[in-house]
Amino acid sequence: MSLTVSILGATGSIGRSTTDLLAQHPERFRVGALVGGRDAEAIAKLAREIGADFVALADAAQGPLLKDLLSGTGIPNGAGETAVLEAVARDADIVMAAVSGAAGLRPTHAALRLGRTVALANKESLVCAGDAFMRDAKRYGASLLPVDSEHNALAQALGDGKVADVASMTITASGGPFRTWSAERIAAASPEQAAAHPTWSMGMKINIDSASLMNKGLELIEAHHLFGIEADRLDVIVHPQSIVHGLINWRDGAVTAGLAMPDMRVPIAHCLGLGERLTIARGRPVNLAAVGSLTFEAADEARFPCLRIARAALRDGGAAPTVMNAANEIAVAAFIRGAIGFYGISDLVERACTHFAGIHGQAPADVDEALAIDAEVRAWSTQALAA
Amino acid sequence: MSLTVSILGATGSIGRSTTDLLAQHPERFRVGALVGGRDAEAIAKLAREIGADFVALADAAQGPLLKDLLSGTGIPNGAGETAVLEAVARDADIVMAAVSGAAGLRPTHAALRLGRTVALANKESLVCAGDAFMRDAKRYGASLLPVDSEHNALAQALGDGKVADVASMTITASGGPFRTWSAERIAAASPEQAAAHPTWSMGMKINIDSASLMNKGLELIEAHHLFGIEADRLDVIVHPQSIVHGLINWRDGAVTAGLAMPDMRVPIAHCLGLGERLTIARGRPVNLAAVGSLTFEAADEARFPCLRIARAALRDGGAAPTVMNAANEIAVAAFIRGAIGFYGISDLVERACTHFAGIHGQAPADVDEALAIDAEVRAWSTQALAA
Repeated sequence: MSLTVSILGATGSIGRSTTDLLAQHPERFRVGALVGGRDAEAIAKLAREIGADFVALADAAQGPLLKDLLSGTGIPNGAGETAVLEAVARDADIVMAAVSGAAGLRPTHAALRLGRTVALANKESLVCAGDAFMRDAKRYGASLLPVDSEHNALAQALGDGKVADVASMTITASGGPFRTWSAERIAAASPEQAAAHPTWSMGMKINIDSASLMNKGLELIEAHHLFGIEADRLDVIVHPQSIVHGLINWRDGAVTAGLAMPDMRVPIAHCLGLGERLTIARGRPVNLAAVGSLTFEAADEARFPCLRIARAALRDGGAAPTVMNAANEIAVAAFIRGAIGFYGISDLVERACTHFAGIHGQAPADVDEALAIDAEVRAWSTQALAA
Repeated sequence: MSLTVSILGATGSIGRSTTDLLAQHPERFRVGALVGGRDAEAIAKLAREIGADFVALADAAQGPLLKDLLSGTGIPNGAGETAVLEAVARDADIVMAAVSGAAGLRPTHAALRLGRTVALANKESLVCAGDAFMRDAKRYGASLLPVDSEHNALAQALGDGKVADVASMTITASGGPFRTWSAERIAAASPEQAAAHPTWSMGMKINIDSASLMNKGLELIEAHHLFGIEADRLDVIVHPQSIVHGLINWRDGAVTAGLAMPDMRVPIAHCLGLGERLTIARGRPVNLAAVGSLTFEAADEARFPCLRIARAALRDGGAAPTVMNAANEIAVAAFIRGAIGFYGISDLVERACTHFAGIHGQAPADVDEALAIDAEVRAWSTQALAA
């Protein structure tokens, strides 16, 4: 009766939260394949702790070390793209797709082509190749379960309701560290100031996307694909406490909302439960009387132009989101190393979107095309910054 | 394809909101039977406006006037209990059970015995005879849809989830006009002060129940029956804005919530939609950025003893809720006419619960028994006040 769960991105933050839950429910889950990037020590230690049917690292150079570290365990393992795809091909009832960045596209798509139930934490799959992913999920009978707290909240708030009955879906933004800052102050902000996220503890890139609200722009694009809902029924609202994550405004004026304390195990548990609810040891239930107040304010696209740009990309469709995401990655990296100011991010992204608008009108037909556009835009953006 | 909707309590506030919605969706609904209390002019006018298969008044003395007022319309009509039951027996896809008070028990139960889909707005059905109502709903294949904003929000937040997976269900209270008052000030409050409800416009009795939080106590009892959830998984939280109406805390730490602006047409539309969502003309969608802040505080059972008493009645079970409700009706009437102070309400209710605890241990087996206990407790309470 136990369900086999494979984890792509096992040593990252989502992977760790997932293995925490699997370890809490040994009667319910067994560990399938574990896939990491290049940290052989971390994934070998994890596999020794919780077991695995197969262990793979994306970085082929780590193969010998990984083999060494797993010797005596009897756990088959490998490194490089073939090994990753072998890991994905292992039998699994649920695949947690939590490889971050564009590197997540191929393994996530491979799981989907096998008709798996895929808990999707890799944003880029839907942002860069959403049309292809949703088409192939349908074609191969795969289910996509949203792991992001916002989309998971929307899925919970939607329940068995129909998207046709939805007036609008709203995701919340903490507002980031610059929520109350003037545009002048934001323009002069340092990477350290931008990365100081008020409520979630995440990586540097995603923290800066939170500060610029690009993160919410990407999430609007994901929501569009996940729920099949168009741009003008999608909204963002700023909610500094990050307790309400998503809201559905129904046609009749009723609203259903998904809430949780900021703990990624909550949406992950919802995905792993497949319709049932898992208990979470050491979880923090929502206590609204203790919280006292939930506040909301409109998102300001003037001070946070990335949100405006992302909305435009979503409306434009085609490859615009793919282009936008690639340019944003280059721009954020440039901001982190001090090459551009904070508004240099939105400037570069907007230039890239304008430049490529006439070049890539169609949505990428498949993962290869999405990755090719991604590479092309990264190269162009890097050059544009150097010019 | 159109659905026939009968309305018990057609000229009351819920009835009016219901007919407003039916009139907005003539392609979807047709009017079945209309049942009122004693206002022949109002129900005749309504029937002339929106049509009806049958019109009935509970007050037999109004029969001749009603017949006169409907002459020439061809709408069959009658007055008295037989006419009411004849109205209920008319074919209907949905019966809106919105007769208020103990008078609602018999017609609501009659609809349920016919296996109807019953939109339940009559609190007393579940408070006074909940076990019998739920048993008979199951026995006769009737569906009960909750009209109260709190229970409707819970139903929406529950979606297709399982009550077994629920850690707790929480209904919200506006806190009433005495939310911030000291116990000393509450003790000296006048009926007018108690009836000044901050967010909802309702009748005098229900406003005073809101001020004492007895209303929330009654709603906890209703929630227990509607969702088959026991007392220790039911909670009340004070939320002065009355926008969040009910919350479900799931076992995994996620929360789903039901929100709406204070407008009874929203939960009624949800019931009438039978899984689809109706549009509501001149509705007010929830705009959280405009609302700005949703606040929450613990309910204070020291200043609001009725909530404590109702929780005890729910835990005690048997006929305790029936007794409590009857004593509360007498006490509130006495408070309104100035015979007792505000805390005289909870005093009398608690005395009644104590007195009858040894006398009526079993839950009423049927409506007759519930009404007999109701009458007995009213008589005792009236005497206790006079003593």
